[in-house]
Amino acid sequence: MTPMSESVAFQDQMTDNFCWGCGADNPDGLQLKSHWEGKGEGDVAVAQWQPGSEFAAGPRHVLNGGIIATLLDCHGVCVAIADAYAREERAIGSEPDLWYATASMSIDYLRPTPLDGPVSLRGWVVDVDDRFTTVECELDADGKVRARATVRAVRVPDTWRHGAPPA
Amino acid sequence: MTPMSESVAFQDQMTDNFCWGCGADNPDGLQLKSHWEGKGEGDVAVAQWQPGSEFAAGPRHVLNGGIIATLLDCHGVCVAIADAYAREERAIGSEPDLWYATASMSIDYLRPTPLDGPVSLRGWVVDVDDRFTTVECELDADGKVRARATVRAVRVPDTWRHGAPPA
Repeated sequence: MTPMSESVAFQDQMTDNFCWGCGADNPDGLQLKSHWEGKGEGDVAVAQWQPGSEFAAGPRHVLNGGIIATLLDCHGVCVAIADAYAREERAIGSEPDLWYATASMSIDYLRPTPLDGPVSLRGWVVDVDDRFTTVECELDADGKVRARATVRAVRVPDTWRHGAPPA
Repeated sequence: MTPMSESVAFQDQMTDNFCWGCGADNPDGLQLKSHWEGKGEGDVAVAQWQPGSEFAAGPRHVLNGGIIATLLDCHGVCVAIADAYAREERAIGSEPDLWYATASMSIDYLRPTPLDGPVSLRGWVVDVDDRFTTVECELDADGKVRARATVRAVRVPDTWRHGAPPA
């Protein structure tokens, strides 16, 4: 694999990604950054993210569950995309473009997530076929797993990103 | 039931709710507002919400899946809370306080959601026991169902909201 893919976040290798959760091109978004852990690819991918105080659940000291869902979803789909490029032995973002969207997601919220420190994400591919990649993700904070998700990502054609608005 | 619960959104009857998705007390949040449909309670609850252009998926014309998850989660939990008050024949927000948190959620993304118009939510209780309430929710836009979710909400004690930060 290229040195770039080891040192630069998945999202910073993607072009034209305005995703509110992870797009490098969306200045108002959460700007999640995911990497393979260590030097290998096809392994566990990690991310760290620092919540702002506005992203509360009902109580002001607990992280919002929708934000947790957003982080798990974005991390999972970006792992699916990175894995697809790795399987073709190409750098993320190289042509022809590969892209995935979320087909379905299930989340278990195991315990409240504190809002005053960073959260860590881990994700790994558990199943791949021609269309679908399934990624397991965990969100940790302060040394404990707070939420677990299964993200089922579907490969989408270039028209999904660059075609007409959805009907 | 009180006239208030028919005309005022669930979230506007709740006290001290800083939730980023639906808290009336969070000026930086999405401010989702949910109501029972028509005059009856214990029936379908609805909400409408207008996305801002920053809440994009990868493409700029599609609504972000994490935002969709946030809306479905908040609507589902607020339906669980409203339903719990209705079962006790009390107005939402009356003492003693009733509150629910999300235990788990599963979402199917059926088709892309356009970002240029409002989305509509529907939610209805499908199962209740002493601890858990299960709510089915749908998100529609431009006349089509775009996503479906099952939200499993768990009743939480007052310490969940007003106690010490999570360990």
